Amino acid sequence: MNLNLTKMQGTGNDYIFANLLDVGDSEIFDEMNWSQMAIRLSDRHFGIGSDGLIFICPSDIADCRMRMFNADGSEGAMCGNGIRCLGKYVYERSLIKKTVICVETMAGIRTLYLDIENENHVRFVSVDMGIPIILPTIEINSFLLTPVSIGNPHVVYFVPNQPSEYPVEKWGPFLECHSRLKERSNVEFVQVVSQDRLRLRIWERGSGETLSCGTGACAAVVCAIQQKGLENKVLAEVPGGTLTISWNGNGEAVFLSGPAEFVFDVTVHM
Amino acid sequence: MNLNLTKMQGTGNDYIFANLLDVGDSEIFDEMNWSQMAIRLSDRHFGIGSDGLIFICPSDIADCRMRMFNADGSEGAMCGNGIRCLGKYVYERSLIKKTVICVETMAGIRTLYLDIENENHVRFVSVDMGIPIILPTIEINSFLLTPVSIGNPHVVYFVPNQPSEYPVEKWGPFLECHSRLKERSNVEFVQVVSQDRLRLRIWERGSGETLSCGTGACAAVVCAIQQKGLENKVLAEVPGGTLTISWNGNGEAVFLSGPAEFVFDVTVHM
Repeated sequence: MNLNLTKMQGTGNDYIFANLLDVGDSEIFDEMNWSQMAIRLSDRHFGIGSDGLIFICPSDIADCRMRMFNADGSEGAMCGNGIRCLGKYVYERSLIKKTVICVETMAGIRTLYLDIENENHVRFVSVDMGIPIILPTIEINSFLLTPVSIGNPHVVYFVPNQPSEYPVEKWGPFLECHSRLKERSNVEFVQVVSQDRLRLRIWERGSGETLSCGTGACAAVVCAIQQKGLENKVLAEVPGGTLTISWNGNGEAVFLSGPAEFVFDVTVHM
Repeated sequence: MNLNLTKMQGTGNDYIFANLLDVGDSEIFDEMNWSQMAIRLSDRHFGIGSDGLIFICPSDIADCRMRMFNADGSEGAMCGNGIRCLGKYVYERSLIKKTVICVETMAGIRTLYLDIENENHVRFVSVDMGIPIILPTIEINSFLLTPVSIGNPHVVYFVPNQPSEYPVEKWGPFLECHSRLKERSNVEFVQVVSQDRLRLRIWERGSGETLSCGTGACAAVVCAIQQKGLENKVLAEVPGGTLTISWNGNGEAVFLSGPAEFVFDVTVHM
């Protein structure tokens, strides 16, 4: 069977998209093991190469449904950069011609807001990431860490100087698996650059350092707004680009915005 | 401009191929910076992702000419796994319908031998890698190392047990740059499994550990044949698959054979 797939990236997080809006997730795709397919296609030497595989499926309760499988085959509940790419995909390919799109995910329904120019070009996609939960700061081995949940668990650490000079490869795995954390955590190493800008490197649990992480950037920003008095709209520089994050304080949802780009279309024989 | 490209891999070394047999390397391609193009397209998150970019060009003195650019933009003289993929490409796509193909490279003309089944399926491609130069074994920090040139410099080290258990990430960079070696070297960590089989891990200079390296496997095998009395045809298990290497002893050329596979075709807009 020939499969038409599309690779996209948002600040360097890259995903392979399969449009199942017409097919549904019945029929042919029922017979396939999606998890195995993600492992095979995500391999960067023997496959197409990606951080994961995203299926765009029909939904009974939203405009579409996203099912996302990581490169290791595990199913992910949500993915900030992936769902932003999905927004560009369905709009520019005229599958869902709306500038506010509701997407069913395993983490609930998420709303996308599209910034359009020249009729069909999606400049940015913004996504409602839900209400963050910020826990009290704890001290582990002289690290002052703030646990933040953006659906998934993070700990935020403000580094003494530049994240680029910080030994993330040493302390990332140490903190990720530390016994004082309730579960394995993603770790953000953050520098406040100014009142509306920060810079960070991200250690993702199970993946190591990555070019970008939507939920990680949100965790860093909400923590910096609450603890360091940053403005409500902050640019977060991650190694793969720049994200814009907005948050109006406790009890409010956090919004993640940034670029999303097509990389290439490809047909593979499965 | 739309460019039709093809990704292939041989034991996990993956390359992007551009067919310029009709275009020539004049015209449009003259205006492009091939080195920059290799950097951009080889990027595994923002581009297609590969170990390098290979242009198949016309030749005045051979069936075709290979120009190969590494992922860092540097031009490579030769590439054992890349040139084997090239053989499959030009045969199966009916560009050069010969089972013995001469390819002009910066390291001289290399001859490919194709093993065909069912008329058009290339099972294996074997390449004449030239005459290896084996230098006397030296001792560096209690490592007994044999320098071998297969056009490029290698040092071969027989590990005490399994390569999979050996700390390659520690000793690879140490040996690669050791001041007692005339130039930075690729390093092979080799285990002899039987009289016709060995297992190795490869530390490539400038790249770190890789899934496969055609010249590295040749260096390991000729060294094992000479020093350990292995047979003239040896299976070399690298992390990305299995290569077959043949050598009849001093003064003879070494032959590298193994699988080569299409991964996908892709059209990119440059």
